[in-house]
Parts: sequence; C-alpha cells; structure tokens
Amino acid sequence: ARNIDLAVIPGDGIGQEVVAQGLKVLSAVLPQDVKLETRQYDLGARRWHETGETLPDAELERLKEHDAILLGAIGDPSVPSGVLERGLLLKLRFAFDHYVNLRPSKLFPNTATPLEGRPDIDFVVVREGTEGPYVGNGGSLRTGTPAEVATEVSLNTAYGVERVVRDAYERAKARPRRKLTLVHKNNVLVHAGHLWKNLFDQVGREYPEVTTDYLHVDAATIFFVTDPARFDVIVTDNLFGDILTDLAAAVTGGIGLAASGNINPTGDFPSMFEPVHGSAPDIAGTGKADPTATILSVALLLRHLGHEPEATRVEDAVSADLAERPAARTTDETGDAIAVRVAG
Amino acid sequence: ARNIDLAVIPGDGIGQEVVAQGLKVLSAVLPQDVKLETRQYDLGARRWHETGETLPDAELERLKEHDAILLGAIGDPSVPSGVLERGLLLKLRFAFDHYVNLRPSKLFPNTATPLEGRPDIDFVVVREGTEGPYVGNGGSLRTGTPAEVATEVSLNTAYGVERVVRDAYERAKARPRRKLTLVHKNNVLVHAGHLWKNLFDQVGREYPEVTTDYLHVDAATIFFVTDPARFDVIVTDNLFGDILTDLAAAVTGGIGLAASGNINPTGDFPSMFEPVHGSAPDIAGTGKADPTATILSVALLLRHLGHEPEATRVEDAVSADLAERPAARTTDETGDAIAVRVAG
Ligand SMILES: CC(C)[C@H](C(=O)O)[C@@H](O)C(=O)O
Ligand SMILES: CC(C)[C@H](C(=O)O)[C@@H](O)C(=O)O
Repeated sequence: ARNIDLAVIPGDGIGQEVVAQGLKVLSAVLPQDVKLETRQYDLGARRWHETGETLPDAELERLKEHDAILLGAIGDPSVPSGVLERGLLLKLRFAFDHYVNLRPSKLFPNTATPLEGRPDIDFVVVREGTEGPYVGNGGSLRTGTPAEVATEVSLNTAYGVERVVRDAYERAKARPRRKLTLVHKNNVLVHAGHLWKNLFDQVGREYPEVTTDYLHVDAATIFFVTDPARFDVIVTDNLFGDILTDLAAAVTGGIGLAASGNINPTGDFPSMFEPVHGSAPDIAGTGKADPTATILSVALLLRHLGHEPEATRVEDAVSADLAERPAARTTDETGDAIAVRVAG
Repeated sequence: ARNIDLAVIPGDGIGQEVVAQGLKVLSAVLPQDVKLETRQYDLGARRWHETGETLPDAELERLKEHDAILLGAIGDPSVPSGVLERGLLLKLRFAFDHYVNLRPSKLFPNTATPLEGRPDIDFVVVREGTEGPYVGNGGSLRTGTPAEVATEVSLNTAYGVERVVRDAYERAKARPRRKLTLVHKNNVLVHAGHLWKNLFDQVGREYPEVTTDYLHVDAATIFFVTDPARFDVIVTDNLFGDILTDLAAAVTGGIGLAASGNINPTGDFPSMFEPVHGSAPDIAGTGKADPTATILSVALLLRHLGHEPEATRVEDAVSADLAERPAARTTDETGDAIAVRVAG
C-alpha cells in the first residue's frame, strides 16, 4: 500500500491542539503497511508577526509535493482581519484549485441540536471553492474619506461552475436518496445566478436518476431550521456555501463537529482537510477545544486518499464516542478515546 | 390630523389577499379624523404578461406622489426569475432610495418556533437597501457557451453605509438594551468589509451609550439558532440582510409573521411596507395565506407616518390574536379578528 506524505499546518489558537488529535487518530487507524510521514509547516499569526510572511512561494512549492494537507485553524485577533484569511487560507484553496469544498452535516445520535424534535439530518454541501465573491477582485477608492467607494466582484465561469456541479451530481448519484439542490439567488444576482442555473439544468440531463430542485439562499436558510431532513446534496457558490455550512453546523451539534475537505478532484494538487471552526483563541490552551471536527476531517482525508474502510472506521468511532461521551472531557481525552476505538 | 394618501400594489399570488387584510386593519385603527385614500396599482406578473411592462416611468412618477406604499408580494413562476424582482420590486427600492430596510423579529407568545426552549427573541435587522450586491452591476460574456464568464459587482459607498449605520445607532439608542451588532464578512470581502467596519466604529464614537459588536455573517447564522436572544439591533448589507431576515423569520414563527419597511428616512420619497414572504402561488386563492406579516407591516407604516399609538395598537392586537389564534383560520378571518381588536 502507498504511504501517506502529509503536510500539517496547525495554524493558530486551538489549531495545534486539535491537529494533534487528528494525527493521533490517523496513526491509530492506518494499516501497518501504510507509513505516515508528516511535515509541519509553521504558518499563521506567529509567523506573520515575526516575519511579515503569510505564505511564501517557497513554502507553497514545498506544500505542493505532499499527498494531502491537514490544517487546524487560521486567524488571530492580533492580526488585521483578512490578512491571514486571504494571504494564507484562501491562497492555499486558490493556488491548489480546491474547487470542491466538501462539507457533510450529520446529526449524530446523542449530540445536541437547538432544533426541536431532533430532525433526521444527513446532507452534504458541495461548496464551490475557487470563484464567486471569494476571488479577491475588489478595491477601494478614496479609502477612509467620506467619498470612499469599495467594490467586491463575484467572478463566475462556466468552466468553474460546470465542474463543481458535475462533482455534486456524482456525489448525489452515489447516495441512496439521489437528490441534489442548487442554492443561489438568481432572482437578484441574475448573471451569476443564471449561469449556475443553466449549467445545473444542463449537466442534470446527464443524471436522470438524480432528483433536483432549486432554492434561493434566503429560503434555504428557512428549511435548514424547519425541515433540514429534506436535503441530501446541496451545491452552491463560495459565499452562500460559507454561510450555509456554519448554519448546518449549528443545527447538527455545533461547529465542534463540522468537518471539511478542500478537494482538488483532478489530483493535480494536494487536497486540504480542516475543521470548519476557527482558531478560538479564547479557549486555546485550556484543553476545552473539541477535536472531533478535525478527526472527522481526517476521515474525509482518508476517503480522498482511497482508504475507504479506514475513513468509515473513523466515522463510526466518532459516532460511537459521541453516543457515550461524558460531559466534561479534555481535547486530549477525546482524541485518546476515538484513537482507542479505531485501533480496536 | 393629516390624511393618508396610500399607494397599494397588491402584486402577485397571495399579495391581493393579504393586502386586503392589511387595509382592513388600517381602516379600523385610524382615528375618525384621519382620512385614508388609497389608489391601487396594477403591477406584477399579469401586467408583464399582457404588456411586457414591469414598472413604467409614468407609474413611478405617480407612485412618488403618495405618502407611502403598501405592497403585497411580487413574483410568479410563469415569469423568468429576476424580471419582476429587478424590474419592479428592486426598482422601487432603488428609485425611492429606500436605504433602511427595516425588519423586526419578535417571538410572540404562543407562536411556533423550531428552536428548543423558546428563547426570548426580540431584535431588529436594519438591512441596507440601496447598495451592495443588489445594485445590478454585473454581466455575462459568451453567455450560454462553455467559455461564459458572469460577474456581479457589490458597490459600497461611504455615503450609503454611513447613513444606514447612523440610522441603526439611532434605533439602538432608543431601545432599552442599546446594543448594535454589525454583520459582514470583512475577513474575505476586505474592501467592502473594511468600509463597513470603519464607518461602524467611526459613527459609534458619537453613540457611547450603545454597546457594539461585530460578527462575520457565517458566525451570525450560528447565533441566530443557538442564542438569538443576544441580538438587539443588527446592521448589515443588502445581501446578508436578505439571508439573515429569512432565517430570523424562520425562528420567530415563520415567514407568515415577518414584516418589513423599505424606508427613506429623509421623506424625499414614499416609503414602502411589505411582508418579507413571497407571492406563494401554490396557496393563492385558497384562503390559507396568513395576513399577519402584512398587518404588522401596516404597523410599521403607521409608525413611519407618525401614528405611533395606532402602530402600537396594531402590534398589540396581533400579539393578543396570536395568543388565542385557533389552528385553522382563513386569511379573511384573521384580518377580521385583528381589525375587531384594533377598533375595540
Ligand atoms: C476563515 C474564512 C476565510 C473561511 C471562509 O470564509 O471560507 C471560514 O469561514 C470557512 O468557512 O472555512
Ligand atoms: C424577492 C427578492 C428580490 C427580495 C430580496 O432579495 O430582497 C426578497 O427576498 C426580500 O427579502 O424582500
């Protein structure tokens, strides 16, 4: 079996702590004959303060050589908003053409949800990762004056939309319910919206077995809280996906459980796996951080690298652990408990 | 007392039915010496099908002469997405410079919420109404081909942001909790986001009595379901406001109760009041439409025109009605019940 050469970017705040647990579980679940090599990259707030660098080209080149990347969390209040997000996290997603930002949401048994009646939630958001309002195409004129004008341009291409829509159809086709929902706002953002809708319909003709529907993003948020069970696979743009997946996390046990994969399906570049949550500097170092989202991201990583049985074993272990999880437990204890389960 | 010269745009689907109830309650609550004159405008899907017109200039000119506008709902599946939204509804909001899109959210006693534990929800979203991604500044190149590129430009000006932020501070200052939250995404949309954040901080220095905080839009959706009681007044951009207010409606009794005012605070143009919900063609004509959102929009209209006691009477009547509302009731019966209460 192929060995795994993994880049690790712990990042800021609780990043280091949760990544350590992810690696613990990864080591425990891998078959004896698969060797895990890791290389840590010191990127994030500390590095920026020391050197002014967010992601030097040389590091980007080196990262490119790995099979995959495991990332903890990026961001710190001491760094101006946007510097690390744009200069590091989004730079990685764009440079490595992570056009499928995969975010599954499942309400595990015994986990808390703010929704009454514990609906049966099990869906996947396929968030576009390389276009839309995230392209960084904007500017500001007469900045800081009463005459300032600031723009943000959402760029959308048939090339970029078609490939992510196709990926979503494939994922929907492989699931029992075979349902795909497009979320956009094509009654207002008519140009981008019609591009998405047209390609969604066009590609859909190749997938007659997949049931489809369309929701405006505002209406989608309603269903996320009133009827989340209606969703199977959702495909949406970069910004709507950002918003919807935080909401999805909130209704399925919270941001402590939400995993994500920034995937380049072509394999031209390493894919990157990270919890949806941020660096939570307020609880960094306290042992209160929940590493489950990172561990579930490791499951996505395993699946992406072709280790399907191991991916499932991690997910089953998380599910079993959540079902019996004691109220107060440290980051480390949670990692240990899940590692023991996957090894056993 | 001044009379009220009201423009009425029933629009599509259930628009006609809910507007009729709004007018019923408005007539019932007004003091004897305030005369209500209304003029109906035939705008929406039917007109577009017949004449190809969405909002002719002559109608816009005539609308301008009224004290206010009451609108039911716009949109029909028979009309291509965007035609009526951009050509009629948004055209009105932009032409009449409705820069404060006011959307209160309150969980009335006895109304359903999908949230466990019935949190104490009572906040107001001040949504910017004339800028951002709604400006209609976008386009598409090589439309319909595999080489298509589509853009949407978010335009933001210090002029536009400062005035709506100031309005939100004023509203926060007038409320008991005096708290104002800015919602944006300034870690990604750095140009627009920093413009918003800078003006939010700058104007805030004139309101030391108002407590402030900032949330990214994705994080805000989490708090909408896990801790909505934390919000008092929220100020945000046009698109984020659209998304958040549907979510707010969902957690406070549903879209059937969500009112809104498109307000031009200068009085240069008539303000426009409408339920947040759409035209719901599937239930049009069945008597199932809930007119409460329209009736609560009438309360906002009354308040805007200086009839504060009458506005409060309508809101109290709605609250009392909801507390005792029978499960099955027609649109008309709900209007009657509330009209009786405000008159009594
Ligand atoms: C940190 C931020 C740039 C990022 C995003 O907006 O994509 C985060 O919210 C996420 O969802 O991964
Ligand atoms: C119908 C649509 C154009 C409108 C909007 O996006 O503003 C609606 O969703 C609303 O919230 O009033």
